[in-house]
Amino acid sequence: MRLLGFAAATENASNGLLQHLALFMEYLLGAIGEVKRLSLCLMLRVNEEQFSNLMVRKINLCLKIPELESFTGQIKAFKIQRPSSGGDLPQTGEYTFPVARRVNSASAMMMGDDVENGNLGPYLDRPRTFPNMRICIVSFLLSIYLTKWVLSKDEGPPEMAQISEAIRDGAEGFFKTQYGTISKMALLLALVILSIYLFRNTTPQQESSGLGRATSACITVAAFLLGALCSGVAGYVGMWVSVRANVRVSSAARRSAREALQIAVRAGGFSALVVVGMAVIGIAILYATFYVWLGVDSPVPLLLVGYGFGASFVALFAQLGGGIYTKAADVGADLVGKVEQGIPEDDPRNPAVIADLVGDNVGDCAARGADLFESIAAEIISAMILGGTMAQHPSGFILFPLVVHSFDLVVSSIGILSIRGTRDSNVKVPLEDPMTILQKGYSVTIILAVLTFFGSTRWLLYTEQAPSAWLNFSLCGLVGIITAYVFVWITKYYTDYKHEPVRTLALSSSTGHGTNIIAGVSLGLESTALPVLVISVSIISAFWLGHISGLVDETGSPTGGLFGTAVATMGMLSTAAYILTMDMFGPIADNAGGIVEMSQQPESVREITDVLDAVGNTTKATTKGFAIGSAALASFLLFSAYMDEVSSFAREPFKQVDIAIPEVFIGGLLGSMLIFLFSAWACAAVGRTAQEVVKEVRRQFIERPGIMDYKEKPDYGRCVAIVASASLREMIKPGALAIVSPIVVGFLFRVLGHYTGHPLLGAKVVAALLMFATVSGILMALFLNTAGGAWDNAKKFIETGALGGKGSESHKAAVTGDTVGDPFKDTAGPSLHVLIKMLATITLVMAPVFL
Amino acid sequence: MRLLGFAAATENASNGLLQHLALFMEYLLGAIGEVKRLSLCLMLRVNEEQFSNLMVRKINLCLKIPELESFTGQIKAFKIQRPSSGGDLPQTGEYTFPVARRVNSASAMMMGDDVENGNLGPYLDRPRTFPNMRICIVSFLLSIYLTKWVLSKDEGPPEMAQISEAIRDGAEGFFKTQYGTISKMALLLALVILSIYLFRNTTPQQESSGLGRATSACITVAAFLLGALCSGVAGYVGMWVSVRANVRVSSAARRSAREALQIAVRAGGFSALVVVGMAVIGIAILYATFYVWLGVDSPVPLLLVGYGFGASFVALFAQLGGGIYTKAADVGADLVGKVEQGIPEDDPRNPAVIADLVGDNVGDCAARGADLFESIAAEIISAMILGGTMAQHPSGFILFPLVVHSFDLVVSSIGILSIRGTRDSNVKVPLEDPMTILQKGYSVTIILAVLTFFGSTRWLLYTEQAPSAWLNFSLCGLVGIITAYVFVWITKYYTDYKHEPVRTLALSSSTGHGTNIIAGVSLGLESTALPVLVISVSIISAFWLGHISGLVDETGSPTGGLFGTAVATMGMLSTAAYILTMDMFGPIADNAGGIVEMSQQPESVREITDVLDAVGNTTKATTKGFAIGSAALASFLLFSAYMDEVSSFAREPFKQVDIAIPEVFIGGLLGSMLIFLFSAWACAAVGRTAQEVVKEVRRQFIERPGIMDYKEKPDYGRCVAIVASASLREMIKPGALAIVSPIVVGFLFRVLGHYTGHPLLGAKVVAALLMFATVSGILMALFLNTAGGAWDNAKKFIETGALGGKGSESHKAAVTGDTVGDPFKDTAGPSLHVLIKMLATITLVMAPVFL
Repeated sequence: MRLLGFAAATENASNGLLQHLALFMEYLLGAIGEVKRLSLCLMLRVNEEQFSNLMVRKINLCLKIPELESFTGQIKAFKIQRPSSGGDLPQTGEYTFPVARRVNSASAMMMGDDVENGNLGPYLDRPRTFPNMRICIVSFLLSIYLTKWVLSKDEGPPEMAQISEAIRDGAEGFFKTQYGTISKMALLLALVILSIYLFRNTTPQQESSGLGRATSACITVAAFLLGALCSGVAGYVGMWVSVRANVRVSSAARRSAREALQIAVRAGGFSALVVVGMAVIGIAILYATFYVWLGVDSPVPLLLVGYGFGASFVALFAQLGGGIYTKAADVGADLVGKVEQGIPEDDPRNPAVIADLVGDNVGDCAARGADLFESIAAEIISAMILGGTMAQHPSGFILFPLVVHSFDLVVSSIGILSIRGTRDSNVKVPLEDPMTILQKGYSVTIILAVLTFFGSTRWLLYTEQAPSAWLNFSLCGLVGIITAYVFVWITKYYTDYKHEPVRTLALSSSTGHGTNIIAGVSLGLESTALPVLVISVSIISAFWLGHISGLVDETGSPTGGLFGTAVATMGMLSTAAYILTMDMFGPIADNAGGIVEMSQQPESVREITDVLDAVGNTTKATTKGFAIGSAALASFLLFSAYMDEVSSFAREPFKQVDIAIPEVFIGGLLGSMLIFLFSAWACAAVGRTAQEVVKEVRRQFIERPGIMDYKEKPDYGRCVAIVASASLREMIKPGALAIVSPIVVGFLFRVLGHYTGHPLLGAKVVAALLMFATVSGILMALFLNTAGGAWDNAKKFIETGALGGKGSESHKAAVTGDTVGDPFKDTAGPSLHVLIKMLATITLVMAPVFL
Repeated sequence: MRLLGFAAATENASNGLLQHLALFMEYLLGAIGEVKRLSLCLMLRVNEEQFSNLMVRKINLCLKIPELESFTGQIKAFKIQRPSSGGDLPQTGEYTFPVARRVNSASAMMMGDDVENGNLGPYLDRPRTFPNMRICIVSFLLSIYLTKWVLSKDEGPPEMAQISEAIRDGAEGFFKTQYGTISKMALLLALVILSIYLFRNTTPQQESSGLGRATSACITVAAFLLGALCSGVAGYVGMWVSVRANVRVSSAARRSAREALQIAVRAGGFSALVVVGMAVIGIAILYATFYVWLGVDSPVPLLLVGYGFGASFVALFAQLGGGIYTKAADVGADLVGKVEQGIPEDDPRNPAVIADLVGDNVGDCAARGADLFESIAAEIISAMILGGTMAQHPSGFILFPLVVHSFDLVVSSIGILSIRGTRDSNVKVPLEDPMTILQKGYSVTIILAVLTFFGSTRWLLYTEQAPSAWLNFSLCGLVGIITAYVFVWITKYYTDYKHEPVRTLALSSSTGHGTNIIAGVSLGLESTALPVLVISVSIISAFWLGHISGLVDETGSPTGGLFGTAVATMGMLSTAAYILTMDMFGPIADNAGGIVEMSQQPESVREITDVLDAVGNTTKATTKGFAIGSAALASFLLFSAYMDEVSSFAREPFKQVDIAIPEVFIGGLLGSMLIFLFSAWACAAVGRTAQEVVKEVRRQFIERPGIMDYKEKPDYGRCVAIVASASLREMIKPGALAIVSPIVVGFLFRVLGHYTGHPLLGAKVVAALLMFATVSGILMALFLNTAGGAWDNAKKFIETGALGGKGSESHKAAVTGDTVGDPFKDTAGPSLHVLIKMLATITLVMAPVFL
C-alpha cells in the first residue's frame, strides 16, 4: 500500500516562533485530555516541492485505509518524508486537523516501512496523550487538600508554637544557605557541561536528526538545570510541610494518638505526592519538548539524562549537608546530654536540642525528598531510554514508566487517605499498633498497584508481534513488587527488636561497649547477604521473563530482557509515593516528640509521640532498603544506556567491559575505593562536627551553671549556627570527590589510551568504575543503614526495660552503638544511595570527556 | 640446519619404575649442584624404529654445532620427536651423558622449529638446574643455626619457665586439635577433587600430552595434599619457635634490651626462613616431578595450582581458627580485666591471661606463618603459569620466581644476621629505638634485594629476541620493591601515633566512646585510598614496562605485559623473609611482655618488653599491608590463568568477562557480598566467643573472691578450654562459606547457562565473582587492618600520658576502640588476605565444575 495521508501545516510560517509556542500550549492542554483518546501518527511522503509547500499552506488530509475510516480522534503527530523519488499522491478523502510541526526527514525514517506496507497498527492504537499529566494535576490538587487539612489543625499552646518557630527558623535558614551554595555549584557545573558539549563530537544520530552541537548543549544544560531546580523544590516541599506539621502532631497527641498519626501521615503524604508528581511531570514536559515538540528524533531519549543528573547532583549535596547537620547535632547533643549529664533526649536544658530538631527536618525530610525524587527520576529515565531502544514499538514502551508512576500517585493517594483517625478522636492511646495501621494502608496500596500494573502493561505494552509479552512484563512488575516487599521484610528482620538479630545485639551490650560495636558491625555486614540474593533472583527472573516475552529485533534475537528488568524496577517503585509518605512520617513524629519533651508536656503525651517515633524509625529503615534496591536496578539499566551512548559517540560497537584488562581492573578498584573514601569522609564529617557541638555544649554547661536547674536558658542559636556552618563546609569534600573522580579517571585513561593506541580505554575504565562502585556502594549502604538501624533499636529495646533498662551499663554501651550508627544510617548510607545514581548519570552526561 | 643430537636412554626398560626412581634421585641430587652450571635441552628427531630403540638402548649423542663444540656441562633434559617422515641422522660427534627420560612427541613440538633452524641459543644458555634448592638447603641449615642459638639462651627463673610451659601446652594442644580438624576436612576435599577430576572433560592439551584423566586427578590431589601439608608445617614451625623464644626474650630483657631484641628477631628469622624455603622447595620439587620427570608437557604449569589451593585451604582455617582464638581471649580478658576490674594487661589475676598469651602464638605466629607461606606459594605459581605462557622462552621465565625467592632467602638472612645485640649486652635500655634497628636491617635487605633482582633478570630473562627486555623486567621488580616500601610507609602513616591520623583518633576519644568509633571507622575507610592508588600505578607501570619490553608472540603482538606485573609482584615479595621475620617478632615480644608481667618482674624489665611490643604492633600492621598488596597482584595474575584454563577446557576462546550481562553482574554482586558476609561471620565469631570468656572470667571473680588479693589462683585452664573449643566450632562457618559459595554459584549458573544456551555462563559468573570479591576483599581488609591498628595505637598514645593518660575517660573510650579493632585487624582482616588468594586458586582447581 502506498501513501495515505496529508496534513495541515501552519498557515503562516513567517510568524514561526509565536505559532510554535501557541501550538506547544495547545499540545500541553490537549495532553490533559481524555485518557483513552486515541491519537494517530501519520506518515507523509512528499516530494521536495510539496515539502516546502507544507510549511506555508494548510493541507488537507487524504485517507483511505479501513482503520482510518472509523477514526474519530485527533491526530497529534505526524511525520513527513521527502522520498528520493517523488510520485503522485492519491487523494481519496479529506480530513482536517489542527496540529502541525516541522519534522525532518530522518525522524520519519523509522516508520517508513510500516506506512509503505499499510501496517498502521502499531501507531493507531497507541495513546500518545500524556494521561499522567492529568493524574499529576489531580495529585497536586489532592496534595493541596492534604496540606490545607494539616494546616487547619491547631498549633497547640504558645510554648509549643514557640519551639516550633525556632525549629522553623533554623531549618529555613539552613535550607536557604545550603541551597544557595548548591545552586552556585550547579551553575558552575552547568557552564562546564555547556563547554564540554560545545566542543564534543557529534554522533551519527545527532547528525541525522539535524540537532546541532549548540542545540544539544543547550538542551542538556537546560535539562540539568530543570532537574536541579525540581530536586530543590522537592527538598523544600518536604521540609516546608514537616516544620509546620511537627507542632500540629504534638498538639494533637494531647488529644488523640490516632489524630496525631493521621496528621503525620497526611503531612508526609503531601510532600510524597508533590515529589512523585513533580518527577513525572518534569520528565513528561521535557519529553514533550524535546521529542514531540522540537522533533528531536533519537530512539534513545538520552537528552533526558541531564535532568536525572541535575536531580542527583542536588540530592547528593542536600543529603550530605542535611545528613551531616542532623547527625552532628544528634550525636553532639546525645554525647553530652544523655551520656555525660544523664538528662533525657530532647531535654530543653540541652543547648544542642534545637539544632537536633532542626536537623530532623533538613536532614531527614528535605534530603529524603530530594533523594526519592532523584530515585524516581533516574528510574523513569533509564526505563524510557530502554523503551526507546525497543525501536519497533517505541511510544508505548517509552511512555510506560510515566504511566506507572501516575498510577502510583493514584494508588498511594488511596492508601494515604485510607488511614483515618478522626473517628476515634476521643481515644487517647491508639487501639492498635501504629505500624499495623500503616501496614494496612500499605497493603491497600500494594493490591491496587498490582491491579493497575497489570492494566497498564496490557494497555501500553501489548503488541501484535508478541501478543503475550504484556503478560510477561506484568509478571516482571510483580517480581519488582515482591522484591520491594521482601526487602522491607528483611530490613525489618534485621532492625526490629522483635526479631533475633537486634536482641542478640542488645545482649552483646551487656558485656560492654566493645562487644556491642563488634556485634553491630557484624550484624550490618551480615545483613547484606539476603538483599543481594533477593536482588540477584529478581534481576535474573525479570530479565528472563522479558527475554522470553517474544519481542525480537530485526535479526530475530530477543530484545525484551533488559526492559523486563526495567519493568521490575518500576514494579518496585510502583508504590513509591506511599513508601515516601511512611518515610516522611518518621522525622515529623520525631520532631513532634521533641516539641512535646521541650514544652514539658505530661508523660502520657510523650508516650504517644514515643510510639510514633519508634514506628518512624522502622519505616525510615525500610525506605532505605527500598532506595538501595531501586538504586541497584536503576544503575544497572543506566549502565546499558552508557554503553549505547559510548557506542554512538565512538562510532564503533562498545558492547563489552572486559575486567581482565589491567586498566579496567584498576578502574574497578578505583570505583570501589571511591565508595570507601566517600563513606569515610561522610562519617568523619559528622564526627568532627559533633565534636565541635560537644565542646560548645560542655562550654555552655560550665559557663552557665544555671542551665541544669532551669534557671538559665541555654543559647540554642549558637549550636544551630555551629552545626549549620560546619555542615556546609563539610559537605563539599565528599561531594566534590564523587563528582570529580569519575571525570578525572575517565579523562586520564582516555589520554593514556590515546598514547597507547586504545581509543576506548577511558570509556571502559569508567564503565568498570561505575559497576564496581555500584556493587560496593549497594553493599556498603546496606551495611551502614542496617547496622545503624539495629543499634538504634537495640538501644530502644533496652530502654523498654530489658537487660537492666535505662541507665544500666548495658544501656550505656547501647547508646555508644546508637551514636556510631547515627552517621552510618543517616549520613553516609543515604548519601551512598544518591551517589550510586549520580555516578550512573554523571558518566552518561560526561561521556564526551572520556572519548 | 638439521638434526643434531642423539641421547642415551635407560639401559633396561623392563625395570622401569625402579630406574625412574633412581634417575629422579639423581636428578634431585644434581639439582643441588653448581649454580652457574649450564645445561642443555636438546631436540631429537627420530623415526618410529629408532624411537622404540631409544627406550631400550644406550644411545650416543652426535653433535655438530659451534656452540656445542665448547659445551662441557651436563645435559639435563632433552626431547625426542618422531617425525612424520623419517630420515638419516648425521653423526658428526659423540657425547655421552647420564640422563634419560621418556618424553612424548607432543612435548617436543614447541621447540621443533628452533632445532630445525639450528637456533639452539635460547636453550643453550639457560640454566636448568635448580640453584634455589641449594640455597634452600643452606637456608635450612642457617635456620637450624638460628634456632640452636635461640634455644641456647636461658629460660630465666622457674616462675617464668612455668608460665611459658603453660602457654606451650595450651598452644600445642590447640594446634593439634585444630590441625586434626583441618586435615580431616582437607582429606574430604581431596576426595571431592579426585572425583571431580575423574569425571571431568580432558583438555586438548592433556590429550596431546598423553596425560590421562586418572593421572591428572592424582597429580592435582597429590599437589593439593602436599600444599596442605607444607602449610601445616609452616604454621607449626612458627608456633614451635615462638612458644620457646618468648620466655627466653623475657629472661634476656632482665639483662639487656638489645639481647632481647636479637632473640626475638632470630626466632622470627628461623620460622621465616623455613616458611619461605619450604614454599620454594615444595614448588621446585613438584615442578621437577611433573614437568621434568613425569614429562607432563603443558606450557602452563597449571597442575601446580593444587599446591597453592592446598596451602590456602589450610591457611584459611588456620587463620580463622587462630584469629578467633587470639582475639576472643584478648577481648574477653580486656573487657573484664582492664575495663571492669581495672587490673593491667596480662595481670596474673586475670583467669583469661594464659588463653590470651596462647592466642598470640596460635593466632599470630602459626596463622601468619601459614598465611605468608601461602602468599609466596600463590605468587610463585601464578608467575610460573604466566612464564609458561611465554612459550618462546619458557624455562628461564618459569624458573625466575623460584630464583627470586631463593635470593630472598639469602638477602633476608643477611638482614636478619645484621641485627646484632650481644656487643652491648650490659646496657639495660636500647641505645636507639628498636624500630630504627629493625629498619636498618630492612634497608640492608632491600638494597641487596635490588642488586640480586637486577642480576637475576639479566641471568634468566635475557633473550636474543628482545635484548633489553631483562632491563624492563628489572624495572618492574623495582616498581614492586618501591610499592612494598610505599605500602609500609602508608600503613605506618595511618597506624603510628607519631602521625596525624592516630593523633586525631586519640583526640576524638576525649569526646566519648561513640566519636572514637566513628573516627576509627572513617580513618580505616579513608586509609584504603592511597594503597589503591599505589597499586593502580604499579600495576599499570609494571604492565607497560613489560608490554614494551620487546617480547612478542608468533603474531608479533607484545606478550610481556602481564609478566611485567608478575615480576613486580616478585619484587614486592623479594624481601618476604625479612618482612615475615619482623612480623613474627611482634607476637614473640608480646608474649615475652606477658610472661614478664605474669611473673611479676620489676617495672624496668616490663618497660623493655613494652617498647618491643609497641614496635611489634607496627611491624605487624605493615606486614598486613604487604600481604594485601601481594594478594591483589597475585589474584590478578591467577585470574588470567583462570581464563586460560577455561579456554582450554571449553575448547573455545574465553577472553572477556563482560559485566554488562545481568548474570555476570550478579556474579560480581555475589562476590562482593561474600566478602561482607565472611567478615561479618569472622567478627561475630570473635564477639560470641569473647562473651563466653567474659562470662567465665566474671564467674571466677565472683566465685573465687580471693583471686584479686593473689590469695587464690585463677583457673587458667578453663578459659583456655573454652576459647579452644569455641574457636574450633566458629571457624567452620566462615571457612565453609568461602569454599562452598564459588563452587555453588558456578555450578548453578552453569546449569542455568545450559538451559538457556550459554555454555560458558558458569565460568563467566565465577570470573566476575572472583574479580569483585578480590577488589572488595582488598578494600575491606585494608579498612579492617588499618582501623584496628590505629585504634590500638591511639590507645597506646593515650597510655603514654596524652589526653589524660591511663584511667581517664579518653582512655576508656580508646580501650573500646582497641577492643573493636582486635577482631578487625587480627581475625577478619588477615583471613581476608587468605580468602582472596584461596578464591583465586579454588576457581582454578574447580574450573571443571563450572563447565
